[in-house]
Amino acid sequence: MRIQGRSCLVLGGGGFLGTNLCRRLAAAGNRVRAFGHRRMFPDALTGVEWQQGDLADGAALTKAIESFEIVFHFVHSTTPYSANLDMIEDARRNVLPSIALLDMSHRLGVKRIVFLSSGGTIYGRPQQIPTDETAPTEPITAMAISKLAIEKYLALYEYLHGLEYRILRVANPFGPYQLPIKRQGVIAELISRAIANEAIDVWGDGSVIRDFIYVDDVVDAMEAAALDASKERIFNIGSGTGRSIREIITTIEKQTNSKFNIRWKNSRSVDIPVSILSIDRARKELKWTPRTSFELGIEKTISWWKNSASEIKQILHNQIQSSGIPPLPH
Amino acid sequence: MRIQGRSCLVLGGGGFLGTNLCRRLAAAGNRVRAFGHRRMFPDALTGVEWQQGDLADGAALTKAIESFEIVFHFVHSTTPYSANLDMIEDARRNVLPSIALLDMSHRLGVKRIVFLSSGGTIYGRPQQIPTDETAPTEPITAMAISKLAIEKYLALYEYLHGLEYRILRVANPFGPYQLPIKRQGVIAELISRAIANEAIDVWGDGSVIRDFIYVDDVVDAMEAAALDASKERIFNIGSGTGRSIREIITTIEKQTNSKFNIRWKNSRSVDIPVSILSIDRARKELKWTPRTSFELGIEKTISWWKNSASEIKQILHNQIQSSGIPPLPH
Repeated sequence: MRIQGRSCLVLGGGGFLGTNLCRRLAAAGNRVRAFGHRRMFPDALTGVEWQQGDLADGAALTKAIESFEIVFHFVHSTTPYSANLDMIEDARRNVLPSIALLDMSHRLGVKRIVFLSSGGTIYGRPQQIPTDETAPTEPITAMAISKLAIEKYLALYEYLHGLEYRILRVANPFGPYQLPIKRQGVIAELISRAIANEAIDVWGDGSVIRDFIYVDDVVDAMEAAALDASKERIFNIGSGTGRSIREIITTIEKQTNSKFNIRWKNSRSVDIPVSILSIDRARKELKWTPRTSFELGIEKTISWWKNSASEIKQILHNQIQSSGIPPLPH
Repeated sequence: MRIQGRSCLVLGGGGFLGTNLCRRLAAAGNRVRAFGHRRMFPDALTGVEWQQGDLADGAALTKAIESFEIVFHFVHSTTPYSANLDMIEDARRNVLPSIALLDMSHRLGVKRIVFLSSGGTIYGRPQQIPTDETAPTEPITAMAISKLAIEKYLALYEYLHGLEYRILRVANPFGPYQLPIKRQGVIAELISRAIANEAIDVWGDGSVIRDFIYVDDVVDAMEAAALDASKERIFNIGSGTGRSIREIITTIEKQTNSKFNIRWKNSRSVDIPVSILSIDRARKELKWTPRTSFELGIEKTISWWKNSASEIKQILHNQIQSSGIPPLPH
């Protein structure tokens, strides 16, 4: 399903998933506006309106929403790791502004909100693998508690005010426009290291299993969720297959003809040993299926890194200059 | 199970459930401190230390926690009805301070937190009756979303820091020291009206079914939860039996020898048609069971109202003077 002839606001439109979605929507001729702190790749967003702003800035948000029909909500100020360091701030900066967003969307006549939730963390340590949408949600990171609360407010707003919504619990996405920052994006980090021939830190012993999904397939699911008329509201989006960090490393080494120098680090408490999502509901209700094999996804990602090498280098350099945070911590 | 020789802090200790619990704990010789905005019945809390304060006041809370072993957390600033009128404020005033409470409790060496959750609202419109603790939680009031988020932070703090906790999802408690304020406490309201021979507003058509439980039985469960060594964390606490508002009215009319003048009002969106909790888990793990029949509970409550008539009149009068909110809205 493709979105056509609509107006779409993408909160967090300058980030990894946001950039990919905006490009797809703009290419199909939709009116697209991206809202967020910054665009990582401004040149990638030609034809997309840009509004810089913070989710917690009510006035900026109202201005951004304006008369847009579909709102994609991808903004979250923390990571699974950082959220646990200040849980109050995580809730204050993400949950409270999301409630305000719902209220504005309702008042301004938004047709539907598509919310990006976290398939990898919302279930906590899953009791059943693969994990479906009805599994208990027992997060071990405050970020996922905030995501869960926002999911519940979405349901409440539909119940009270008829505001439509869909939730995508996305596994571990990878692909073009993902940069290895904030200790996230292991595939992006591995590829960038492989290309630069640098050593890499890996938390745990490499046996951790994740459900990686190529970004184009995630964007397919976002479009399907925006148009979905089923009675379901929450959809897991993953490949349905688990891969260990060791497998990822092997695949990337093979495709880049390189050998990693790995420094093994102690595993972190927010790391769940195995996370694989059941995607039966999305297959059935959204008529969606992941179309890109893991190997092809890696190939496309490597090729993007190689073609964008100088641009990425400049972005990472600017990132360090502006934030003081080294994007590739050693 | 009875708590003995311990130090117990009751947040919200001046309210309905808090007053009942404090009396029980103090009578058994425990060191008891009540913390909250106000004591409804100061004379009922002889032998209980009193500290006035707001949950959101970190300094006051730290001072209150001090070296107490067991913390009962009963504070919630909103009701199912009022929370939906300002969801952001509900989250700000309840969720954020509760996270701060967990952090302080962890740092100050609290042994266990017993949290009062909402058995009547946390499941939303239940898919199965009676509803057990594993049922989906789909609240239709923001108050219950906040309660749910706090439940998740409790689990996270145990996971990260070993802070012990138990959660009681209590149905509709009634009994002595409950006053009909903030549109809650239908039994208290009915009894006070019956005694005063006044007309009463009832939302809906009287067919709404709730699970009413006498307060002494709830206090039993609180003590059991504070001492519980099972692997469970969440317990439904109710009578396990549903009663319609019409049945309640009939029972009270019979016991007070009166006839109500009822004004039927439109039902409210936060009112769930049927709520009955399954209490099998609490029976099994807490070795707890409700011991007071509904009729006996009503009898004891009526008798308390009659014996406390002049005191209650004075309290309700002061309540109107201090808050400007009529406790019995017409």
